[in-house]
Amino acid sequence: MNNKTTRGREATYALPVVILAAGEGCRLQAGNGGKPKPLTRLLGLTFLERVILSCREVGVREFYVVTGCYEDELIRHVEELGRRLGISIRPVHNPNWPDGNGTSVLAVSPYIAGPFLLVMCDHLFDPDILRCLMEAMDDGEGCLLAVDPRVDRVFDLKDATKVCLDGRNVTAIGKGLAPFDAVDTGLFLCRPFLFDALAEARRGGDGSLSGGVRRLVEEGRVRAVDVADRFWLDVDTPESLSLGKKHLLTGLAKRGDDGIISRRLNRPLSRRISQLLAATPLTPNAITVLSFLSCLGGAFLFGLGIYGWTVVAGFLVQWASVLDGCDGEVARLKFQGSRFGAWFDTVLDRYADVAVVVGISYGYWLAHPRPLVWLAGAVALTGFVLASYTKKEYALRFRLQPPGGVLSNLAKRDVRLFALFLGALVNRPFEVMVLVGLLSHTIIGWLFFAVYRQRRRRAREDLQRVE
Amino acid sequence: MNNKTTRGREATYALPVVILAAGEGCRLQAGNGGKPKPLTRLLGLTFLERVILSCREVGVREFYVVTGCYEDELIRHVEELGRRLGISIRPVHNPNWPDGNGTSVLAVSPYIAGPFLLVMCDHLFDPDILRCLMEAMDDGEGCLLAVDPRVDRVFDLKDATKVCLDGRNVTAIGKGLAPFDAVDTGLFLCRPFLFDALAEARRGGDGSLSGGVRRLVEEGRVRAVDVADRFWLDVDTPESLSLGKKHLLTGLAKRGDDGIISRRLNRPLSRRISQLLAATPLTPNAITVLSFLSCLGGAFLFGLGIYGWTVVAGFLVQWASVLDGCDGEVARLKFQGSRFGAWFDTVLDRYADVAVVVGISYGYWLAHPRPLVWLAGAVALTGFVLASYTKKEYALRFRLQPPGGVLSNLAKRDVRLFALFLGALVNRPFEVMVLVGLLSHTIIGWLFFAVYRQRRRRAREDLQRVE
Repeated sequence: MNNKTTRGREATYALPVVILAAGEGCRLQAGNGGKPKPLTRLLGLTFLERVILSCREVGVREFYVVTGCYEDELIRHVEELGRRLGISIRPVHNPNWPDGNGTSVLAVSPYIAGPFLLVMCDHLFDPDILRCLMEAMDDGEGCLLAVDPRVDRVFDLKDATKVCLDGRNVTAIGKGLAPFDAVDTGLFLCRPFLFDALAEARRGGDGSLSGGVRRLVEEGRVRAVDVADRFWLDVDTPESLSLGKKHLLTGLAKRGDDGIISRRLNRPLSRRISQLLAATPLTPNAITVLSFLSCLGGAFLFGLGIYGWTVVAGFLVQWASVLDGCDGEVARLKFQGSRFGAWFDTVLDRYADVAVVVGISYGYWLAHPRPLVWLAGAVALTGFVLASYTKKEYALRFRLQPPGGVLSNLAKRDVRLFALFLGALVNRPFEVMVLVGLLSHTIIGWLFFAVYRQRRRRAREDLQRVE
Repeated sequence: MNNKTTRGREATYALPVVILAAGEGCRLQAGNGGKPKPLTRLLGLTFLERVILSCREVGVREFYVVTGCYEDELIRHVEELGRRLGISIRPVHNPNWPDGNGTSVLAVSPYIAGPFLLVMCDHLFDPDILRCLMEAMDDGEGCLLAVDPRVDRVFDLKDATKVCLDGRNVTAIGKGLAPFDAVDTGLFLCRPFLFDALAEARRGGDGSLSGGVRRLVEEGRVRAVDVADRFWLDVDTPESLSLGKKHLLTGLAKRGDDGIISRRLNRPLSRRISQLLAATPLTPNAITVLSFLSCLGGAFLFGLGIYGWTVVAGFLVQWASVLDGCDGEVARLKFQGSRFGAWFDTVLDRYADVAVVVGISYGYWLAHPRPLVWLAGAVALTGFVLASYTKKEYALRFRLQPPGGVLSNLAKRDVRLFALFLGALVNRPFEVMVLVGLLSHTIIGWLFFAVYRQRRRRAREDLQRVE
């Protein structure tokens, strides 16, 4: 949920961001068919797009992209992005880009009058790092640099810019520092006086951003903000690109929220599928619909009441369960998450469950035409739907997740659909369905009992405290 | 919801309360069979109990009840209340009670060292007034008196204590003031210096609370807090008692949340029933179960498929719908609301709906043994349950109530059950049920469409603002 629903929430932060995308990036090009580095695609998004979306995630609404080497391609891409995402992105050309990345920052100086974020377009990073920078801003008068003191986990330490720290103050910065305390992540919160420092450094013959920052460091005007455990990666080589990809994919699971089948079986599969889906234009909502249609197909085949088709139906339903994880994963990978999507997904899951129960009941009724079949189907149906309903209601009333436990985990959709899949394989989908339905009702009852007992215990403790 | 779920929330306010219950209350006794006034029952609670629960509602955990005239009866009652409610109530006897209610406040002076609330046990009041007093407390050095400037709505104006105001300062207080600006509600937030003022007034021959307060007024140490539209009533006579009862009953409806049938038909009935139920020891959860059992009975009778019983079933279901309003009403009347109760009620409603659908489908199937009957039943069942589910999910995801509208109101339970009742009268419960089920699905679809369109419009507006 966290990184799916933040669009409105962060409206208080309104810093502009400057994205440096002027360089050549030749080391990456070797493995990239000669495409400009900012336009390199990673899991469905170009580098530039990912950086822009990461910034939007924390509330940024004003974007400056400094172009240099690949001016035309970048401008086209920036215009397309602005239109598609509905945001204002101003491309700023830096004809002096070969003189160093400091000149690229200088190129935006006519547009910027207050504090701004500064990021590199070839960095992957957890948007939370920008949030930390902005939260650390309040007291005013310095530049902030996000640094990572866990140097052993830095990918290409040799090539990284190092910093020395005295408390929170940066006392030295440079690639060749030894010893050093942390590594520069390339994420800054700057103020316009950086422009003066950069201009001065350039007059002294140093056109690099580091040159300007070094001057501020000497004046004691740069403070460090620890990124803690948050992910960041400077992508310069094909190796670092695949490391970044791996990291983005493994970070996908909604921790803690998954059932056992989802965690052990579905996620490893869905992650691979999401990787493929991310490269397509399919939106998360479209994937939600695909998963729903798989369930409908499964329901129809279950309804035929023929063993061969039942097995196929079982596979379809399990496939739908795997795909049900992909919508959220693609949403997180491509910053396409929305509350609407989460809502749509959850309600459609219930409809899919209903269809499957009706299909299985119908298939069984063909061989056993007794009304009891339908009554048992109704029990299963309500068990499936109300297990979810009861938890949602609890969350609404108590503003808490309901108490967990092994039993509660068994009433999750991944477990349910997997059980139906196994039941289909042995031609017992109806029996399994009814059992799982009964189990769901038991779990609902247990949940009420557990919460009731908890309340009684608390009331007793209150009373003892009073006495 | 508001006054049902506050027990934990208000833990920050921890002022003790002093409840004056020492007087004779002879005017009320005339219509009360000679019972002590604090023990007079109103809608299932004694006056004292209602005052204590009102205070607990806003976080008070420390109670002092000053007894006088009816010491023994009150002490017994206070002990019983403390045990039953699990709270600490200390009875304090004031042997000087005939000298005036100021002596009753003085009686608690050995126990109180900081600010405290002071209320009269014969006042009915909206607990929010106490919350206002405590919120107004922060800046420190005065006594706060809740006053009502809307003097035209004061029941017994002649007998009321009036105050003159200069801004927020009370400049004069007394029964005979004319002109005056507002009326004293009898709800105070005091500090221990009141004790000195009372002692001084008493030495001057005035044992009343007003006498002590008047001294503080003269020193400019009493500030007024406006009760705004909040309810309060000084109950001195049988007439004011029945006015208070009427007010408590009419304030019961959960405003805005009710469907049209609930508002127009069920509430006027349920209010009368709640009034009766409040006098019994039935808890709200027990009423919830009674409503559920009525639905189960209805479901069983529907399942017989016989017209006469179908009509009875219709009445049972409509009765369950009326009773479904009573649990919340009794909870609000008797301060017995809980999040658990609200959760339990909602989930049990869904189970009840399921039972009714299964019963109606079975009854119809007896005359028309086709599987289509069960499929139609499944459509209705899921429509009933998912209409509620979809709204709950929306509320969870968006932290907002879903968009309303006439259409959405039709998918409410009161409307649904009333339609089934009407259907039963004309022996067409199945047809009505399927229609209502289809309507529910339509409403779910409409809800998604409406929210989707809203999001699209917002995105377009964002884009226009950018361009």
